[in-house]
Formats: sequence, C-alpha cells, structure tokens
Amino acid sequence: MNKEDKLVLGGREFNSRFILGSGKYNLELIKAAVENAGAEIITLAVRRANTKDSENIMDYVPENVTLLPNTSGARDASEAVRIAHLSRELGGGDFVKVEIMKDSKYLLPDNNETIKATEILAKEGFVVLPYMYPDLYVARELENVGAAAVMPLASPIGSNRGLATKDFIQILIDEIDLPIIVDAGIGKPSEACAAMEMGASAIMCNTAIATAKDIPMMATAFKNAIEAGRSAYLAGLGRVLTRGSESMDPLTGFLRD
Amino acid sequence: MNKEDKLVLGGREFNSRFILGSGKYNLELIKAAVENAGAEIITLAVRRANTKDSENIMDYVPENVTLLPNTSGARDASEAVRIAHLSRELGGGDFVKVEIMKDSKYLLPDNNETIKATEILAKEGFVVLPYMYPDLYVARELENVGAAAVMPLASPIGSNRGLATKDFIQILIDEIDLPIIVDAGIGKPSEACAAMEMGASAIMCNTAIATAKDIPMMATAFKNAIEAGRSAYLAGLGRVLTRGSESMDPLTGFLRD
Amino acid sequence: MNKEDKLVLGGREFNSRFILGSGKYNLELIKAAVENAGAEIITLAVRRANTKDSENIMDYVPENVTLLPNTSGARDASEAVRIAHLSRELGGGDFVKVEIMKDSKYLLPDNNETIKATEILAKEGFVVLPYMYPDLYVARELENVGAAAVMPLASPIGSNRGLATKDFIQILIDEIDLPIIVDAGIGKPSEACAAMEMGASAIMCNTAIATAKDIPMMATAFKNAIEAGRSAYLAGLGRVLTRGSESMDPLTGFLRD
Amino acid sequence: MNKEDKLVLGGREFNSRFILGSGKYNLELIKAAVENAGAEIITLAVRRANTKDSENIMDYVPENVTLLPNTSGARDASEAVRIAHLSRELGGGDFVKVEIMKDSKYLLPDNNETIKATEILAKEGFVVLPYMYPDLYVARELENVGAAAVMPLASPIGSNRGLATKDFIQILIDEIDLPIIVDAGIGKPSEACAAMEMGASAIMCNTAIATAKDIPMMATAFKNAIEAGRSAYLAGLGRVLTRGSESMDPLTGFLRD
Repeated sequence: MNKEDKLVLGGREFNSRFILGSGKYNLELIKAAVENAGAEIITLAVRRANTKDSENIMDYVPENVTLLPNTSGARDASEAVRIAHLSRELGGGDFVKVEIMKDSKYLLPDNNETIKATEILAKEGFVVLPYMYPDLYVARELENVGAAAVMPLASPIGSNRGLATKDFIQILIDEIDLPIIVDAGIGKPSEACAAMEMGASAIMCNTAIATAKDIPMMATAFKNAIEAGRSAYLAGLGRVLTRGSESMDPLTGFLRD
Repeated sequence: MNKEDKLVLGGREFNSRFILGSGKYNLELIKAAVENAGAEIITLAVRRANTKDSENIMDYVPENVTLLPNTSGARDASEAVRIAHLSRELGGGDFVKVEIMKDSKYLLPDNNETIKATEILAKEGFVVLPYMYPDLYVARELENVGAAAVMPLASPIGSNRGLATKDFIQILIDEIDLPIIVDAGIGKPSEACAAMEMGASAIMCNTAIATAKDIPMMATAFKNAIEAGRSAYLAGLGRVLTRGSESMDPLTGFLRD
Repeated sequence: MNKEDKLVLGGREFNSRFILGSGKYNLELIKAAVENAGAEIITLAVRRANTKDSENIMDYVPENVTLLPNTSGARDASEAVRIAHLSRELGGGDFVKVEIMKDSKYLLPDNNETIKATEILAKEGFVVLPYMYPDLYVARELENVGAAAVMPLASPIGSNRGLATKDFIQILIDEIDLPIIVDAGIGKPSEACAAMEMGASAIMCNTAIATAKDIPMMATAFKNAIEAGRSAYLAGLGRVLTRGSESMDPLTGFLRD
Repeated sequence: MNKEDKLVLGGREFNSRFILGSGKYNLELIKAAVENAGAEIITLAVRRANTKDSENIMDYVPENVTLLPNTSGARDASEAVRIAHLSRELGGGDFVKVEIMKDSKYLLPDNNETIKATEILAKEGFVVLPYMYPDLYVARELENVGAAAVMPLASPIGSNRGLATKDFIQILIDEIDLPIIVDAGIGKPSEACAAMEMGASAIMCNTAIATAKDIPMMATAFKNAIEAGRSAYLAGLGRVLTRGSESMDPLTGFLRD
C-alpha cells in the first residue's frame, strides 16, 4: 500500500483503516485483538471509562492507540454533549464518537439529535465522528455543522448482518466530502472488504470479532480484509459481464490459462 | 496464521492458497503479479507453453513457483489427455489442470468428459485438478477416480460475476473429502474472501486481476483477502441475528463501545 | 381473498393495494393501465393538475378512482403546504401525498421537512401520505403528527432497482401502527410481490410500468403480483431450510411427488 | 393474458403454467389447492399411486387435471424406467417425470442416470419431463435424447430457499429450445414470479404450499404470482438504473407524479 494513503481525521493521520470496538471483550483478549487488528483507534464507552472496569481496559490498550470515547447511553443531544464533556475532563482528549439512540430493540441512531450534538461539540473544538443512519440529507447536515467524518451503519448493531444499507452508503461515498466510516452490523471480513471496495474510508467493528471463536485470529482476518478492500478500490476493479463469459486470449479463441 | 495450515495437493505442501492464472497479462506484469499475490502455483495453457510466447512467460515466473499446466482448448477427454502428455514431455511435470469445454459462449466445463480425462490421467500418475461445474455427484465421481482436488466454477470464466454457485460450492465443501478450489468468475477480493470463509481451500483467479487498472496492487488485494477469508474460517464466524440488534453489554443495558 | 381484507386510508376503504402513478405516460395508455391494474388510487402532480395537460389526464381516469394529489416539486415544508392548499382549491379533495426533495440526482425525500409539512396538513384535516426515507424514528414522528400512512422508498425514484431498503422497511412494518406503502424503485412484479409478502400494506408504482414495452400488460402483471404477495402474507409463508433438503414424505423416506 | 399463450408439452396444450405437487398434503386439502392454483397438471409418485392412499388422492383431483406420474424413489435409470412402465400399466398415461436421486441429504438429481432414463422412455413414446441439476451440457443432452421439457431445480427439494441456481437457469432459458420448468426449492410466490420474469415456461411447486399455514390461500398466491411473472416477461421489463434516479418528466425537471 502506498505510504501516502492515510486516513485523516481531525488533522491527525492514521495508517490503519480499522477502528476497533472494546465492548463485550474478555479484557485479556483486548491487547491481542488490537495488536492483531493493527488498530490505531479503539472506541470506549465514556460511561465505562469512568469505572474500575475501564481502568483495566486502559491497561490493555497499547500506548500508541488513539482512544475514541463514545457517548453510548445518550438518548438525546444534551446527554451526548454532557458525556463528551465528561470524557474530556477524564482526559479522553478531543475525539468523540456521537452515539444517540432511543430505541433498545434496533439500537438505531437518532439522526436529528445526532446533528444537534455534532454541531455543539464541533463548535467546542471536538473532533466529532457521528454514528448515523445513512440518509444523504443528514450526512450533508453533519458535514455542514462540522463533523470530521460520518459513520453510517451497515445493519443494526451487533447483528452481524452485513451491508443492508449498501446502496445508500454508496451514495454517501459518492456525494459527501468526508471520510465515510462504515459502522455497525459488519459480520464477516468479506463484508468489510466489500465496503472498502465501494470506497469507504474505514470500518468500525466489534461484535463480529467479539463473537468469533478465536478472537485474535478474527482480528487478523478483519485487518487483512480491510487492507484488501482498500487496495482493490485504489487498484480499480475490473468490469463485470452480466451475461456470457470471456476467453482470456481472443487471438487463440478457445485458449485460456 | 498457523504455520501448520498448509494446502496439500498431490502430496506437495503449499503455504499460499491463491492460484494465479497467466492469461491476458502483459508479460512484464506477471512477475509483479506473482510476487504481490504471493502465489506458489501459476496456471499456464499447454498450447501456449509450446510457443515463443510461453518461453517469455517462463522467464517472468519466479523459480520457486509451481507451474500448473492446463488443457484449455480441449473439447473432449482424449484431447485433454493428449495435451497433458504433451505437457509432461515439455517438462511441465505431473500436475495438470483438466479443462474441457465445448461451448464458446459460456465456457462451461463438460463434467462427463472431465471425469473421463481425470480417471485416465490419475491412473497414469498425474496430480489432476479438474475444473468442473459444481454438481455433487460429479465431485464424488472425480474423488473416486483419483482427482487431487476439485475446482468448481463460481460463475462463467472471465465474467467477474462472483459466487453464482454459492449454495452448491458449500455442499461440495461439506461433503467432499478433497480440497475445493474455487475457480472462474471471482471478480472482487471480497468474493474470494467470502468463498474462503465458507471453507474453500484455495482460490484460482485471473481475469479479476488482469482487468484491474493497477494489476500488481490488485494481486496484493486478492492475496490479503484470501488470507483474511482463511483466517475467518479457522477463527469461526460469529452468529448472525436475523432480526433486531444486540447491545454489547447486557448488564448495563443501553451501553456499548 | 377475504372480502374483509381492506386497505384503510383516512377512514376510506380500498380493495386494491396498488397505487398507480400517472407520470411519464402516454395519455392514451392511462385508462388501460388503470383498468388493468385495478387501481382505486392514482397519484397526480398538483403542478400538472393545474394545466391543460392534466385536464386530459382527468379525462382518462375512471370516475371511481380516487385521485391522490402529490406535492412533487416542493423543496421544503412551506412549498408542500402551499401546493396542498392549491390542490384543495382545485377540487383535489383532502388526500395529499407529501413529496419534498432537494436533490435532483437521487430524488431522495427530505425527512425533516416532510415531518413538518405532514404535521401542518394533518392538523388542517388532510389525509396525509408522506413519501419518506425508511428511518424508524422518522416514521414514529410521522405517526405522532398524524400521517395516515407512511410511504418509504424501496430505492431511488425511477431506478427500477427494487428493495434496496428491505431490512428497514421490515422494521417499519413490524414497529409502526400505520399502513406501510412501499413507494419508488420497485421495478418488477416479483419485487412488489416480495414487499407484500413482508407485510407491506400497498405498493405505489409508476416507472416500472411506464418503461415496460407493453404498458397495459405490465399493469396486469403488477396487479396479480401484489395480490399474490398479499395472499402469501395472509396465508403464512412456510419455513426455509438453511441447509439440506426435505423429502416430502418422512414415512416413505425417499419418496416425493 | 393472450389466449394464444399456451404451454405445450408432448403436443398437449395447457393454459396454466403452475404444476402442483401432491406430496405432504392433507388429502382434504388437495382439491382446494388444485382449484385455487388453477393447476392443470399435478404430479404423483407412482410408488404412492399403487396404494390405497393414492386411490384417495385420485378422488380428490378434479377430472380435467392431467396426472404427471413421477419416478421418485428411483436410484438409477433402470429403476426409473421400471417405475414408468408400472405407471403406464396402472393407467397413468404417457406423461412421466423422471426423478433419480442417490443422495438422501440434498435429494439432488443424478444427471447422467436421468439422461439414460429419458432416452429410453422417450424412445418408448413417453412424454418425458426430467428433473435435473441445471447444467447446460446436460440440458442439451436431454434435448437430444427426446425430453419434452427440462425441469431444473431452483434449490434443494423442500428447502424453500428460492432461486439459488438463478444464473444457470437463465442460461438454459436462453440456450435450450424446450420449455424450462423450474422445479424444487421455490419457497415464495415472489420467487416463482421472478423465475417466470426471467422467461421460465412454468413452475412446479409443492413444499411452499404444503408448509404454508393456509394451504388453499397460498395456492391462490402462487397462481397469481406465476401469471404475473408470465405477463411481465411478455410485457418486457423496463430498464434498471444502476446509479441515480430519474425524474418522470424531463421537461419540467423536478416534477413527478
């Protein structure tokens, strides 16, 4: 991969395009997962950061990894803003992933509250990465109010169902001048690879790894798949024939290798 | 990846699970493609091997790479056998990929002629890898007559259409005690990754790389995707929810990372 | 079909679950299309209703068919409200389909402006059917502000791409206590049928019919497919085996009909 | 539908394109299912025909319906031929559906034995409809040896998994000059409709109806869906946009109905 192919978020450069979640993990496995994933960013629920438990998480995360505190548990913009402030006070830095959900069955993001929180936090100097439902107008609003990226969902959180929003994530990739980070629902490395082939800038993943039988090995699998998808996007995918086949050597007719 | 995870074909061990085709390539690109793909096996049409052109191909293939001569151009078992014999005389070794097609529009393999040629060549001591249409009974026959692996097609040759035969390749993986090498039609790294996640033993690919804008980079992409799919298969994919979502931390309810 | 299985919109009962668009049509074909479709509701752009052209349309629509004026061309809530008022003045009745789009490339609905217009018009006594992007929270808002149904898109208008939003339309069907009318993007009768099998209450379709080679026959096809999907939903679809097969007669083992 | 649009099998004309299976049914439901399906052909296992049980079945099948005896239970060509002879002796007529399977897990047809039996029975004057795995070369062989139609599977028998062989059934439709009757695995009316839209000549279905909660209503659903798919095929499906949308009235730009 070209050394110049960096993911830029809030002016900071990253080589890895794999953002790892820290939920559901056996703590002893987090370090291995981060290392195998080659992740440079790991999310952490602020609510959890403020507990004994999270102190342990910090111990297991390598030093060079950027923490991305998230506002999970927030049900509206004001709660998200309050959690972000708490995160900064706790030393969580200026990065924040805005997550606002009212619904406990599908855990879908509330786009309007997300726009409000993003605007407030961006004005306060946060580097804001909002989790969102992939609606083109909402993505434009998020861009207008200062988001550093948008994080559309692939399918409901924790479902491992893959790219249910595929066509609409493609629209965001084509129309929005921000990194598009596909978040939630990616269940297999092949799905992460496919999202990257479409031109996504990065993948955020948690459950697919946390529910695998061998967590560190699955982290490796995702790392390789995401790099594969990025390379394929940059390399330019070949054409697809909708009908028929194509012999590889037109001169010799029936000959192929 | 575990050092012990080898692909075994005809008693020979391979670390790479990516078999590269040599058709359609600009010769200067073959070396780069092989190196980027990390391929240890490359196919070559015997008809081409017997020409000035193929001497050039040999020059560009690294020494440690195993050549897999194929019988492309054969329209029945006797032609395939004759081409295999020619290959051995030319120093092509004991490996042979049996390809028998009568149809120039879809380039689909003739399963019955393929069984016949496989039986003859296997008895003569060849390590036979037959290209086949993924029919369970045919795969059993190929196993019975001595094939070293079976190579079912994903979709028509050169089409880049992906895993059109997915359900039936899964049946072969579950039922046949030979390596299943998915061949033909794989158009994207994500598709190669998905086939490996299902439990395929290796991927054979040509057109997807030859038609990419940046050939060496696409070879790298396929290499990583195939390794990712293999790791994911070994690591054990997580469960998929058909409805709803799942918060990552049941104790704290609405909390996730 | 049970005589009691009615679609109820704004207190009015309909036997047909097929809402026909009137755009793009050769006027002479509209009557045939409506008759073949068995449609009891046909949409009409208010902007067009106010022209010579639309007078013609009226002439070709059977008397017992309910006109559903739409606000297409509106870019925000106030424009939509103004168009709805104009429609009522012109004798268009109390039904209105709210369509608000800012984007000419994808023609996606602006959910927030749609909620605003729906609230205003519902308070004024209109029977409001809003065209919307299938976001669960937005559907809940539309329900709260008085929509008579919600009309989520299947895929971009005029694309004939089918059920790209499938998983999210299913969520609306499961969670929202209003008729879910799938609108935009349905390109084939089989897709309309599939949406009805999921539990959609009706299908709105225009381009798939207007771009068919034989328009009246395609209208018939959609009519039958929508009725088929409704019957299948009411009849209860059978279980799907994810692996293997099932002989139809367990007692006689290998026997089936 | 055009009165001239007939399905022709063995010189006999049928208006219905829905072939109903008789396995798994509560006998009391068969009559209702046949009537609701509008089926003119119903399959019956010969092994069952020779029992008290089948006498009952006969009682419940309307007189104008053609019985299509099948050879289920046959494991090779000679068994299938023997069963066909028995069928003729029992008064089953000259129609026979050849079904030969060795495998009890997937119930996949043995294409080679099927070709052999088809050849023998066609020479003896039977109207032979072979159940087959959709392999182009095999379909050509079946055509050459005198089959009256080919019956490729959509997915494994009884699975309700739908069109897993879609691309290859399309190839048969495009290349083989016989009616293509999609058999086995169709689980929903929308899938039957989709197969007909592709150009299939008829649909054979059993489990999807037998496992529905309301059997007669599901039979109605399939009838309508199959007619819808046929009409759509004849009417000519509209084009699909792979990206973007299309306003219905290019002159007025942002206007649609």
